Amino acid sequence: MEKKIFLSEKDMPRQWYNIQADLPNPLPPPLNPATGEPITPDMLSPILPMNLIEQEVSTERWIDIPEEVLARLVMYRPSPLCRAYSLERFLETPAHIYYKNEGVSPAGSHKPNTAIAQAYYNKKAGVKRITTETGAGQWGSALSFACNQFGLEVKVYMVRVSYNQKPYRRIMMETWGGKCVPSPSPDTSVGRKYLEENPDHPGSLGIAISEAIEDCVTSKDTKYSLGSVLNHVLMHQTIIGLEAEKQLAMAGEYPDIVIGCAGGGSNFAGISFPFVRDKIYGKEIRIIGVEPTSCPTLTKGPYVYDFGDTAGTTPLLPMYSIGHGFVPAPIHAGGLRYHGMAPLVSRLLADGLIEAKAYNQLDTFGAGITFARTEGFIPAPETNHAIACAIEEAKKAKEEGKEKVILMNWSGHGIIDLPSYDAYMTGKLVDYAMPDEEILKLVKDLEKFPKPRLA
Amino acid sequence: MEKKIFLSEKDMPRQWYNIQADLPNPLPPPLNPATGEPITPDMLSPILPMNLIEQEVSTERWIDIPEEVLARLVMYRPSPLCRAYSLERFLETPAHIYYKNEGVSPAGSHKPNTAIAQAYYNKKAGVKRITTETGAGQWGSALSFACNQFGLEVKVYMVRVSYNQKPYRRIMMETWGGKCVPSPSPDTSVGRKYLEENPDHPGSLGIAISEAIEDCVTSKDTKYSLGSVLNHVLMHQTIIGLEAEKQLAMAGEYPDIVIGCAGGGSNFAGISFPFVRDKIYGKEIRIIGVEPTSCPTLTKGPYVYDFGDTAGTTPLLPMYSIGHGFVPAPIHAGGLRYHGMAPLVSRLLADGLIEAKAYNQLDTFGAGITFARTEGFIPAPETNHAIACAIEEAKKAKEEGKEKVILMNWSGHGIIDLPSYDAYMTGKLVDYAMPDEEILKLVKDLEKFPKPRLA
Repeated sequence: MEKKIFLSEKDMPRQWYNIQADLPNPLPPPLNPATGEPITPDMLSPILPMNLIEQEVSTERWIDIPEEVLARLVMYRPSPLCRAYSLERFLETPAHIYYKNEGVSPAGSHKPNTAIAQAYYNKKAGVKRITTETGAGQWGSALSFACNQFGLEVKVYMVRVSYNQKPYRRIMMETWGGKCVPSPSPDTSVGRKYLEENPDHPGSLGIAISEAIEDCVTSKDTKYSLGSVLNHVLMHQTIIGLEAEKQLAMAGEYPDIVIGCAGGGSNFAGISFPFVRDKIYGKEIRIIGVEPTSCPTLTKGPYVYDFGDTAGTTPLLPMYSIGHGFVPAPIHAGGLRYHGMAPLVSRLLADGLIEAKAYNQLDTFGAGITFARTEGFIPAPETNHAIACAIEEAKKAKEEGKEKVILMNWSGHGIIDLPSYDAYMTGKLVDYAMPDEEILKLVKDLEKFPKPRLA
Repeated sequence: MEKKIFLSEKDMPRQWYNIQADLPNPLPPPLNPATGEPITPDMLSPILPMNLIEQEVSTERWIDIPEEVLARLVMYRPSPLCRAYSLERFLETPAHIYYKNEGVSPAGSHKPNTAIAQAYYNKKAGVKRITTETGAGQWGSALSFACNQFGLEVKVYMVRVSYNQKPYRRIMMETWGGKCVPSPSPDTSVGRKYLEENPDHPGSLGIAISEAIEDCVTSKDTKYSLGSVLNHVLMHQTIIGLEAEKQLAMAGEYPDIVIGCAGGGSNFAGISFPFVRDKIYGKEIRIIGVEPTSCPTLTKGPYVYDFGDTAGTTPLLPMYSIGHGFVPAPIHAGGLRYHGMAPLVSRLLADGLIEAKAYNQLDTFGAGITFARTEGFIPAPETNHAIACAIEEAKKAKEEGKEKVILMNWSGHGIIDLPSYDAYMTGKLVDYAMPDEEILKLVKDLEKFPKPRLA
């Protein structure tokens, strides 16, 4: 058996899978917070091009991937599916552990899968410039790479504390020709307001979103782009799971368990949605989203309508949320600190099609070190959550004496995150589990909004 | 045509190519500096295990790669061979540019190819612990990864100035369980001597080598390991060129020009030696080693006997050298600052089988940015030298209207080197070409040694 299962470029999926076609219960619509009325597609047109809005609301099952997108995806796709033989031996488990290595992209994670698609559709719609926000910088760098490929300008508002602490991502954006500024910035009125209050304001994702949107709606030929949460973003990621499905079939396998870490939900959706479809149509399979105990959206949050951003400027989205007022603890998995969860992922949890688990930070880093010392590659802190869960399930398989097939999404490498490994190895990291009372307090505010309809 | 040519694991080369079998003129032996007499294999046994010494002097053409080495190489090999379509379009060149992506290894460069082999042979010889030195940290991290795979302890003496300025590589070593200390260290007598003179001594590669060797010869079950220069190290890298040869054949191509950057010589040897063999037997092909103008070993140095290290403690090696007293300018291509060149590579240049070119730092970074903005992946500063040469040759092909096939070794990614891109983009980097008088001064000292015999 080969260690890595390579799919040839000619066998790469030519269509994205749109799970909206197969949902047992349709997705509740986003709502206008002022009126409680559903948001219509044209209301999104100031910030998104119409071709992406169409994808956002489409219920077509398969959507063709344009040739110009495929031509960029093959720069690093199909990504290898690897059998973790060495990890299996270390765990003495009968389980077969497979990981889909999304760390092979130029930006080092799965994010370019949607960045390329979004840049293409914006270009096609005549857009010249894209604005976005980024926290730790994964998304901003992926979008800079993609915009460079299509000759689009990009401006990234990066949370100031990360901008100062993590220069590598900013330099990566600039290497691809992207423009990155610390947020709050003097470039927008909302940024100037925060800077007047405090010239050294550390910034937040909420402020960065507000700046990116203000820049978008006040600039010519400019649209806004989001790296997760929205339906079309998740759909662009399904190429991960579609490839994995083919690669597992090449090895004569089908997963018993599919695992992905879940922040906004896009890498989890990417690996799992094609298998959720099988489950909807009767296949027995467990699908697990993994999050930190410090931001336990899926495991502790209620299913509610909440704002997509922390500033409360977006439409209300139907999702599991611990409240948009959530202030993340300073854990290192920057991509898993979102207060909510993609509406599609949330709906699947509400309908019992997926499960969720939460792990403490120290356990996830321990799992990451185990992975690095067996399989060699150093995972991103976000990815460590998926690994922690895969290891737990592999140990269970050993106890049960069952040869289970476990598939996980290895969403990105941890090269730029090495300082967080240093902090772990020198005992500077601590565990933090969010107390229930804290969550109750944060979601209290949401009672004034309608409840998303359950089945 | 596919963008990436993947070789399957079962088609991966099972043997290394040993160019010593095909040299038109045999390699002059290393000499004892005190007596001028050739070094015999057993004189190396205090620092290297006998199985590697045998490889060092072997003239067998093909040497089997052990199964346990293959089992680790498949963690990332065969590496993809990629056609740089986007770069070709940007240059409007009729040339076909292929790059062999060695950045896909866990350590991010070609270095693990020999680290895995060396760890295996040491383990097999009963060695329990390996010492080595590292400059910028590429080699130390590759060896830490490999030793971890075989359950060996490793201690890396890292030049203090790099240890302090570039913590990422040190953390990478520790993540794989390696021990890394700043050199000079209090752990050896030579280290203590330098620390007494200056407690803040910045260190040098020469001092680090001396410490690693002292530690090796004074410790139980311990051997020393080198990441380049020696014959067996270069041979372990030939898997790169052997794979590329097969992959190009899959695309129906054969290279007109093969390009690799050259510091100690191992990545250049890896991509080129299988093609040098073709040239020895009459094939028309150009093979180019590329170095910085700030360390112009191949382009400006004489072919002499010189010490392998800067401290003058090793045997004399027959090589192109600008003198072991060379103090490198602070350019960012840390892997290309060696004063000498592998004896095998030197011999090929002396015999006219390969060419050499030197590029200024700013030109190489310009080439790296062009690559990142066309092909996506951000190259290591060392790799940028090969890219600069490939671009120049592709432009020449355009002028000549010839559809040349250019193969280059993309020796590593530049993620950990992003600060050097920042320095380039903000105008903080300068060019430095070593003046001829400087070289004449440095090599004057070597006149007292014998001259290596030319054909």
